[in-house]
Amino acid sequence: MTLAPGSTIGILGGGQLARMLALAGARLGLKVLIYDPAPDSPASQISPQITGAWDDQAALTRFGEATDVITYEFENIPTAALDLLEAHAPIHPGRNALATSQDRLTEKSFLRDLGIPVAPFAPVQTMDKLSDALDEIGAPAILKTRTLGYDGKGQARIKTVDDAVAALDAMAGAPAILEGFVDFSCEISVIIARGPDGATAAFDPGENLHEDGILRRTTVPASVDAQTQTDAKAMAGRIAEALGYVGVLGVEFFVTPTGLAVNEIAPRVHNSGHWTQAACVTCQFEQHMRAVAGWPLGNGARHGDAIMENLIGSEVDTWPELATQNVSLHLYGKAEARPGRKMGHWIKLG
Amino acid sequence: MTLAPGSTIGILGGGQLARMLALAGARLGLKVLIYDPAPDSPASQISPQITGAWDDQAALTRFGEATDVITYEFENIPTAALDLLEAHAPIHPGRNALATSQDRLTEKSFLRDLGIPVAPFAPVQTMDKLSDALDEIGAPAILKTRTLGYDGKGQARIKTVDDAVAALDAMAGAPAILEGFVDFSCEISVIIARGPDGATAAFDPGENLHEDGILRRTTVPASVDAQTQTDAKAMAGRIAEALGYVGVLGVEFFVTPTGLAVNEIAPRVHNSGHWTQAACVTCQFEQHMRAVAGWPLGNGARHGDAIMENLIGSEVDTWPELATQNVSLHLYGKAEARPGRKMGHWIKLG
Repeated sequence: MTLAPGSTIGILGGGQLARMLALAGARLGLKVLIYDPAPDSPASQISPQITGAWDDQAALTRFGEATDVITYEFENIPTAALDLLEAHAPIHPGRNALATSQDRLTEKSFLRDLGIPVAPFAPVQTMDKLSDALDEIGAPAILKTRTLGYDGKGQARIKTVDDAVAALDAMAGAPAILEGFVDFSCEISVIIARGPDGATAAFDPGENLHEDGILRRTTVPASVDAQTQTDAKAMAGRIAEALGYVGVLGVEFFVTPTGLAVNEIAPRVHNSGHWTQAACVTCQFEQHMRAVAGWPLGNGARHGDAIMENLIGSEVDTWPELATQNVSLHLYGKAEARPGRKMGHWIKLG
Repeated sequence: MTLAPGSTIGILGGGQLARMLALAGARLGLKVLIYDPAPDSPASQISPQITGAWDDQAALTRFGEATDVITYEFENIPTAALDLLEAHAPIHPGRNALATSQDRLTEKSFLRDLGIPVAPFAPVQTMDKLSDALDEIGAPAILKTRTLGYDGKGQARIKTVDDAVAALDAMAGAPAILEGFVDFSCEISVIIARGPDGATAAFDPGENLHEDGILRRTTVPASVDAQTQTDAKAMAGRIAEALGYVGVLGVEFFVTPTGLAVNEIAPRVHNSGHWTQAACVTCQFEQHMRAVAGWPLGNGARHGDAIMENLIGSEVDTWPELATQNVSLHLYGKAEARPGRKMGHWIKLG
């Protein structure tokens, strides 16, 4: 089904990703309706919004009734909300993509079963299980909650077995997964779009630098050889295909001496794809809107090299200086620059 | 004065130019408030809007009170509305730019006094005056209302003196101006931005093809030599300087065997500058928002060649085909595709 201009795309979540999706949709003449619990969400400055909690059935119903298709900007949407909404409009990307990426254990198992290399992993809930897992995987390793972690939250490093008890305590009883450390030379990511007809379009891989668990910078092209770039795009394509995916998918990779390993997947537009806004005819946000609206995918070829850097917390206060520089500046309309909060980004074409 | 992100730019008029200004402002974290008499304006889909007639003093006052600076997307704003609004917030571009461009006679006289070549012209209100003007300027010529004309409206061609009576009748008693035909090889335009500090940034000239008085296509680079491009940018700079201009100004030129002549100026973002959305780090809409917000101008250098074509009236129905092509597609969210109505445009990078 192809949605005509004037149709309404519902977006669950009203953060900066939804805001930029709304801006891309507006270019195409597509209307957007946001659903978010916060009345002053960044996306609500661009689009009408229905404000309600994730368990507000009346608000969710009004949202569902007003949309032609539903998508989302974050993966941790409560299942009950999705159950209600899918009676009203198709949800893209589909629920299996959400279910897979909401749980690190499910995700890792899915990738392993697909023959995609991942870090060694084992489910952990008790100290006994953690000891067994450490015996198998070895230290250093990292213990993560199976669900709800992002930007370095819900994670505890285990340098030696002595850290095990503290790490398990940090999980606060949540089901966890132990992941072996991967010896990687760099991290790259592929942002891939897949349409309902199965067509895919992958952007060139970006090389990502994280600081304190938060993306600091993406550089395109990545400093990896052509074969690695091709391999990364091919793996992203296999993942999207296996999920029957519709929309934009972010796939993060470790580049190791023995090849690529997938770190994680995100069933949504991705911070490491923001560079496409300045360096491609069709950016990741437009690709996502095209895919969920059933349009053909656009051309995601790069017309240049690019560097994207996030503005985190008070770094946004440097905007007057950035405004004097030859960069494309994006600010998210957030009033309060809390530490660790993504406030904007800039892109420099090279 | 530099307006911080989160400040509100008021835009008079809610058409596609305001819509694209709002999208550019959103990227920079600037808020936009639209004023338009139509509740469902294209820009109102992106930004909050105060809906009111141009003589609705209460609505205009609410608008003025809610804005930090006021700009506009069309030049025919009633003077009384501006009188009221300027008590509340600065208006950029300034009122002298508006007054100059609202009246073809004032505009032509301003340009002539500045030493900028223009077509021969003479004011006309009566048949006697028209006869005198035709004696002086000769036929063919074109009779235009001094005010309120755009996209070929309010104009009558005079091929021979026999057309004079009908042409004057077509003015319906409005003050008019007779303009001599210019023997031109092509039409080009320069979109120039000027900041409150007097800094300017001119985009490369585009070559414009009109059909039925409406812009059909802009091609960049224009098929003129480097000297002509430099001359056009320099003339645009002199005009902006003489007006003490703040914002984006469109200047249309005829390219003649004896050099450039200015056809008209538009004190706003301009249809012939839409190509900048896909071919420049900073597009004309962002330049305008930067200028009126007191920010430094961005980099308007082209990273490639471009062709922009308008989608007029029912041409917008070709969107499914355009969506399959390697173009950047822009649709304006207008429900009804009336003949002659600008519904969208596309840009192809070359």
